Amino acid sequence: MVRRKNSHPGDPTAGNGMLSRRIFLEGGLVTAATGAGLFSASAEPLAVQPWMKVPGTGFAGYGQPSQFESKVVRFIPAPPNPATQGVGAARTPLHLLEGIITPSGLHFERSHSGIPDIDPDQHRLVIHGLVKRPLVFTVEALSRYPILSRIAFLECGGNSQALNAPQAQSLNVTAIHGLLGCQEWTGVRLSTLLDEAGVEPTARWMIAEGADAAAMSRSVPLAKAMDDALVCLYQNGEHVRPSNGYPVRLLLPGFEGNMNVKWLRRLKLTTGPAMIKDETSKYSILLKDEKAWQFVFPIEVKSLITRPSPGLTLTGPGFYEISGLAWSGNGNIRQVDVSADGGGSWAPAALQGPILPKAPVRFRAPWQWNGGPAVLQSRATDDTGMVQPTRAAFAAERGLRGIYHYNAIASWRIDEKGEATNVYA
Amino acid sequence: MVRRKNSHPGDPTAGNGMLSRRIFLEGGLVTAATGAGLFSASAEPLAVQPWMKVPGTGFAGYGQPSQFESKVVRFIPAPPNPATQGVGAARTPLHLLEGIITPSGLHFERSHSGIPDIDPDQHRLVIHGLVKRPLVFTVEALSRYPILSRIAFLECGGNSQALNAPQAQSLNVTAIHGLLGCQEWTGVRLSTLLDEAGVEPTARWMIAEGADAAAMSRSVPLAKAMDDALVCLYQNGEHVRPSNGYPVRLLLPGFEGNMNVKWLRRLKLTTGPAMIKDETSKYSILLKDEKAWQFVFPIEVKSLITRPSPGLTLTGPGFYEISGLAWSGNGNIRQVDVSADGGGSWAPAALQGPILPKAPVRFRAPWQWNGGPAVLQSRATDDTGMVQPTRAAFAAERGLRGIYHYNAIASWRIDEKGEATNVYA
Repeated sequence: MVRRKNSHPGDPTAGNGMLSRRIFLEGGLVTAATGAGLFSASAEPLAVQPWMKVPGTGFAGYGQPSQFESKVVRFIPAPPNPATQGVGAARTPLHLLEGIITPSGLHFERSHSGIPDIDPDQHRLVIHGLVKRPLVFTVEALSRYPILSRIAFLECGGNSQALNAPQAQSLNVTAIHGLLGCQEWTGVRLSTLLDEAGVEPTARWMIAEGADAAAMSRSVPLAKAMDDALVCLYQNGEHVRPSNGYPVRLLLPGFEGNMNVKWLRRLKLTTGPAMIKDETSKYSILLKDEKAWQFVFPIEVKSLITRPSPGLTLTGPGFYEISGLAWSGNGNIRQVDVSADGGGSWAPAALQGPILPKAPVRFRAPWQWNGGPAVLQSRATDDTGMVQPTRAAFAAERGLRGIYHYNAIASWRIDEKGEATNVYA
Repeated sequence: MVRRKNSHPGDPTAGNGMLSRRIFLEGGLVTAATGAGLFSASAEPLAVQPWMKVPGTGFAGYGQPSQFESKVVRFIPAPPNPATQGVGAARTPLHLLEGIITPSGLHFERSHSGIPDIDPDQHRLVIHGLVKRPLVFTVEALSRYPILSRIAFLECGGNSQALNAPQAQSLNVTAIHGLLGCQEWTGVRLSTLLDEAGVEPTARWMIAEGADAAAMSRSVPLAKAMDDALVCLYQNGEHVRPSNGYPVRLLLPGFEGNMNVKWLRRLKLTTGPAMIKDETSKYSILLKDEKAWQFVFPIEVKSLITRPSPGLTLTGPGFYEISGLAWSGNGNIRQVDVSADGGGSWAPAALQGPILPKAPVRFRAPWQWNGGPAVLQSRATDDTGMVQPTRAAFAAERGLRGIYHYNAIASWRIDEKGEATNVYA
């Protein structure tokens, strides 16, 4: 990154109108840089609206969003088969949200046989296999252990797979990238429970099984289970939601979503993986040379721009804040750069703290749109030094048939009307 | 804090069973310290429950909690007058939550004339008074400005006022302390908008007015408005909820809740405060010498234990994690100590990061309950060096008629049956 001395924060810092993130730090300069009065009407008599003339409604035990936000819902692609309505996914409406925390009601869900309606008093979690003492836990028993909270992203391994298509499809950020969410998760360290069961020295893997009708299962390396895995009872402060694994889900911070087994009922310690459908024919990455990567677990460094994005039309030339999310399953986000000229030049974005490991970071970059065509891109770097590849570099390495773990730089083209579309650039 | 060398993490670190927080850092030692098998039944055949035998339900646009958690709702004391149902408060059910993020549906609300049902397209925010250019903003216009997110607590200035009563009342943590919540708030820096309006040199205060039927208003020092005040459009990622100020609310991080004006419609810059009802007869602190403190805005350092607490009965002697929240309107929490013997001795609690300014910190302390009587207390210290006072010290300084800003150490008595009650100790 080039630092310019003595430059004005309103000066461009990269091509096609990218301004310096310094304007965020120097309040009054936003106005100076962008033209005072651009966004505000002049003063007018302030009407007394009807809702000020009568008392409002009383209190509710559990609140809901405004009726005027009824369109802020998860995006549910039509199920391929009406007989299997719980097979598929509902996506986080990323283009309508802000910050890093996803409201629990809008967190994406991916289900393989629908959402079970589990009675927590009847639910059990068993730990068995290569352990000295097989154990069965009630939910109540789990809640007696020391617990901890962390903010972490979850991303489906198949997120963004639409970008593998040969031609860029007319989809918005939610349809392409909406299998992503972030919560404050709270639960028991799995290592505490495994220590109590007593892990046999020959154990190397753990098979995690859910209590849905699919008994969705995945093999997890024991090293991950003993590292930062959590057996979660809460998300965003309240009990885990049914669509996210009520009453108990596994959290493997940074690992692809599918492995974070919901409705967790069984952990079996083994010497090797179980070679389950969802780690052989699915959730393996097909490469261009007819080989495949299996057991690729961490989500690699990635970012996307949520605003502007398709459906959020710019209303005319002038100042816009470009905003988006960056995350890495391998650690912290170190830097995000934004381009308005399709990667020809880059400006460093401001990163909104706290920057937490395996959690999304909200980035923001000021942009002066001149009304002409632009291609917006974001490029994240994590603290292992990994940088998001271009789509061409990604394709050259892996090909574009892999379906899973697509993390290349994404592009929105802005046309003269201010409309954004998904493009390959 | 005394550090002991070569001690075992299972050794007591303070009276009446307080253990070292080190056991949280040394996984296997939890079992060693607390007795293996204490919380888990031995293995049994794992039943295939009915919900595994049929496909689950399909996807919902906006998700809700499990039907089995229908009791996890805000606590709504009966309104004093059925004709004024929107006057009062609904409290965050702190005893049922974990982590630091409050789900938006459970965040406390305090309303003076109910919740208005505001059409965001009709809503306006005006900035006028001692400014060079009065301005009127639509919600759409506000959303065009650079925005930022922060995690911050909100606490009603009247929270915990039940502890002013001469005799300890039989109330739980939610009834006493539930006017407290924490969200990730996102909005425009107020300083950006004020810079655009151009603040006149004579301006020292700002009158903030809401669009509810009470036109609830407060006077805010201009210095705070220019410091870290936000004009919020989002909470926990989605649009601000109606009960928390939809579509626009003021956030004054660390200041008493009442000043964080909801349904924000007007900011008038003035030379002095407006001496409104809610800063004269209300929200002023009556002292024991017939004087009063007016314009005391920041919430002082405070903490409370959410678990164990009244209604959450201990099921027998053994290991328990004591858990709670600590916060300060003046900065970061530096330390929390926990006592099981009514303040006779203290053990440092583990603080759950990230520790953020003007945000709650979840603290945890391991405790071995011997089945005998105990009095649990927490004592927070912030990074300005302020320490929560005992109730006696608080009463000696201010008296107990002040109603607002009660922040003394709170006590739960545990009896031999494991039941917790609110006591003065």
